[in-house]
Amino acid sequence: MTQPNPLLAGEPSVTTVGVALFTETLAAQAVPATAVEWRPPLDGVAGPASGGGVPPIADALARVLADPRRVAANAAAVERMLSAGARLVDVRPAGEALGLSPGEFLHAGPPLEWDRASGPMRGALQGAMVFEGLATDPDDAQRQLAAHAGPVGSGRSIVLDSCHHHGAVGPMAGVISPSMWVFEVENPANGGRAWCSLNEGLGKVLRYGAYGPEVIDRLRWMSAVLGPLLQHAVRTVRDGAGPVDVKAVIAQMLQMGDEGHNRNRAGTLMFLRDVLPALVEAPQQLPGFGSADLARAVAFLGGNDHFFLNLVMPACKLVTDAARDIPGSTVVVAMARNGTDFGIQTSGTGDQWFTGPANTPQGLYLGAYGPDDANPDIGDSAITETAGIGGFAMAAAPAIVRFVGGDVPFALATTRRMYEITCGENPGWAIPVLEFRGTPTGIDVTAVTRTGVLPQINTGMAGRVAGTGQVGAGLVTPPAEVFPAAVKALAELAPPL
Amino acid sequence: MTQPNPLLAGEPSVTTVGVALFTETLAAQAVPATAVEWRPPLDGVAGPASGGGVPPIADALARVLADPRRVAANAAAVERMLSAGARLVDVRPAGEALGLSPGEFLHAGPPLEWDRASGPMRGALQGAMVFEGLATDPDDAQRQLAAHAGPVGSGRSIVLDSCHHHGAVGPMAGVISPSMWVFEVENPANGGRAWCSLNEGLGKVLRYGAYGPEVIDRLRWMSAVLGPLLQHAVRTVRDGAGPVDVKAVIAQMLQMGDEGHNRNRAGTLMFLRDVLPALVEAPQQLPGFGSADLARAVAFLGGNDHFFLNLVMPACKLVTDAARDIPGSTVVVAMARNGTDFGIQTSGTGDQWFTGPANTPQGLYLGAYGPDDANPDIGDSAITETAGIGGFAMAAAPAIVRFVGGDVPFALATTRRMYEITCGENPGWAIPVLEFRGTPTGIDVTAVTRTGVLPQINTGMAGRVAGTGQVGAGLVTPPAEVFPAAVKALAELAPPL
Repeated sequence: MTQPNPLLAGEPSVTTVGVALFTETLAAQAVPATAVEWRPPLDGVAGPASGGGVPPIADALARVLADPRRVAANAAAVERMLSAGARLVDVRPAGEALGLSPGEFLHAGPPLEWDRASGPMRGALQGAMVFEGLATDPDDAQRQLAAHAGPVGSGRSIVLDSCHHHGAVGPMAGVISPSMWVFEVENPANGGRAWCSLNEGLGKVLRYGAYGPEVIDRLRWMSAVLGPLLQHAVRTVRDGAGPVDVKAVIAQMLQMGDEGHNRNRAGTLMFLRDVLPALVEAPQQLPGFGSADLARAVAFLGGNDHFFLNLVMPACKLVTDAARDIPGSTVVVAMARNGTDFGIQTSGTGDQWFTGPANTPQGLYLGAYGPDDANPDIGDSAITETAGIGGFAMAAAPAIVRFVGGDVPFALATTRRMYEITCGENPGWAIPVLEFRGTPTGIDVTAVTRTGVLPQINTGMAGRVAGTGQVGAGLVTPPAEVFPAAVKALAELAPPL
Repeated sequence: MTQPNPLLAGEPSVTTVGVALFTETLAAQAVPATAVEWRPPLDGVAGPASGGGVPPIADALARVLADPRRVAANAAAVERMLSAGARLVDVRPAGEALGLSPGEFLHAGPPLEWDRASGPMRGALQGAMVFEGLATDPDDAQRQLAAHAGPVGSGRSIVLDSCHHHGAVGPMAGVISPSMWVFEVENPANGGRAWCSLNEGLGKVLRYGAYGPEVIDRLRWMSAVLGPLLQHAVRTVRDGAGPVDVKAVIAQMLQMGDEGHNRNRAGTLMFLRDVLPALVEAPQQLPGFGSADLARAVAFLGGNDHFFLNLVMPACKLVTDAARDIPGSTVVVAMARNGTDFGIQTSGTGDQWFTGPANTPQGLYLGAYGPDDANPDIGDSAITETAGIGGFAMAAAPAIVRFVGGDVPFALATTRRMYEITCGENPGWAIPVLEFRGTPTGIDVTAVTRTGVLPQINTGMAGRVAGTGQVGAGLVTPPAEVFPAAVKALAELAPPL
């Protein structure tokens, strides 16, 4: 349909901004009006806060926007993100890959002390203690963690540290202990490496805070059987046709209804396809393994649509790590949640975390669970959105709305909205239904602060109470204040106005 | 944006119909106009043909539209299509499954004599003769086919017949000979069965008319190794968890960027996943098979994105067969091409074919091939469109435009247009980006005749010359005249006006 243009037709025209009531009232009176979407900027940006005086964020924002390094620094950040590759080079125990010792545990999100840990984070750490043979049961683990856990350098016998501080990422609680096996991916552009645990499936699993015997038994099988089988297959593929190109698989996923955070179904199947010829010959090569082990392994992989999430995440970690430490860049290089705090890091501010209280996702619940059962946002999986997929690529995965809530127009509008707060587009990760437009890439903290548009994250929901497991999946945003906080820190590093 | 409504605003309004030039001229003069899409009806529908006199199709159409059985008959046809299931119950040699004897060959499309066969059909029959050991080479096969091939009942030593006459379907040339293995699918709603050969992959393959040694060797390996391995796996799954539900896999495919005709990538991977645990144990169970056979089989399956097409097709055959033989129904139950003729069958006219010369697809070409290399439309794979997927579900698979041509808006518009010529929608096969609207189901020959909207088919393109193989993939429609021809036949069976 050709749309009449009221300007050309010589009619008076009305443009409405913000509140829909204006537009609706005019429409009811048969007055044509053009509605422009608009949100107020984040607190303190547009003018004095209610208390009066100089708006602190407005000054900082002006200083950052005037930083002569900013434009080139952000362009470099995006260029490095687009150039980053992600090749699967190994699968091995975390103790070996990350140098973890017994009693060391990595977790999702910014650093966290036991006292402030949420139910699912505690549950996952308790289960990991039992899995490592350091506790007789979850209650014993809880007592030991409460008494003896501390941060790196504290001299405590149980050490807790962020996955991100070790080049690793973990979904949900994200607990990685030495005996767990991890994927190792490499960015051929800069030699960088990243690691992630193997995905356990959905429901009652450690990463959602469950720690029952079936959880521990599954983890033991994964370390004893699945890990070695995958190691053989991944190394055979790596040394033969060349390593699985995780970045290329992600490109295909976006053509197959996956957004890489809560839908990884096609990715999982493509991974299975790529390692399968080597995997089926593994029992002949590895002493003590038989075809029943192989059959269980392929059934486990094929039965877990989220298996590939744990390869998408370290691939996205390589993408975002490539953009780190560019002076003057306002691009976000990490978004991560520990179940209590939501933290971001930007390229121009090194390893500093800007944190705020994690929001609680809203979405769809499993079985009889409801909103009261959900823990606040948790996990390193927001690294997918930081790299431009997940919630940012919902338009590629409209069926996701049946898992996380919302509707199809919302999914399309969400991706379109994310272009407002990002510096670039990734032509290698194209969204077919948007006529192959590249995914929105490189969140700019100044754009978020100025527009009030918050990054959209798709996520799983963990039960609030330790031991519960997954209760649903939904939609969430970061706490708004972390973006102005990053702007203030960037302002302190910018030249004076 | 709120769109001004010129009627409410008291402005004169212009509505244009058909030719875009009207709308464009008005727009250039700043006159708002609403363009309504419209096509002329098929020849002879709207008024006297150029020779004058009574329009023959208009009379027939009136009689069919007035048939008091029509509405209920078409509702029943759609209801049976939606209720049809498709479970994979077996894999076995065509000789056993279809009762074919040496010298009997099935082919795609309506019945065809050797003299009228196109290059790729001849090439496929020549290759099948060599594969069956009935000819020493393709030239010998050609001489024998020219001298001794005839239809069923002709008493000739080589018998050619339509796949459709045996409950079978075959992609492209669709040649099925006794030693080839076939999938066997069952509709639990009525006990009906359908069969299709195993997919060979793309490029130089028999179904595209290639007959070189690599084609014959591959077919021999498929019969000697792949068939028995799949048989073991399919029977194990069938007798254990229950047969693979092909209809349910198709529902998932439509959420994963496949339209089931030229994209079957997700379907292939889901099939591999579903049979894999049983497949990996097959070498232990079958004497003479080893892990190298298994590795080659999984690499072959995983490396052929079209493998699942040969399960989608018999599933669609079950769907459309369910709607056959309903007196008064104007629903199409088969569209099939033999490379020379395009034929359709309708529910209300039994096994009668309405045929016209096959159009030549337009699309994207492999390597140095171009339009002059393409054979006219060929294959039973248009059974997918007949059942409401393939070209009818392009909106679910926007990435397909990179394979068959067109662009993303075309893909979305095509599915929307197909609702104009279909009687129902299939809620079990939902298209996420159209807000989970069901696929357009049950082509109505009266709607096609009245609107001039022709069914859209996505298809592969075979080389014109026997022995060539695939030259590309593209878009095609049936010859328009087959729909009025069906209307005339339906009119003869309708009560007098």
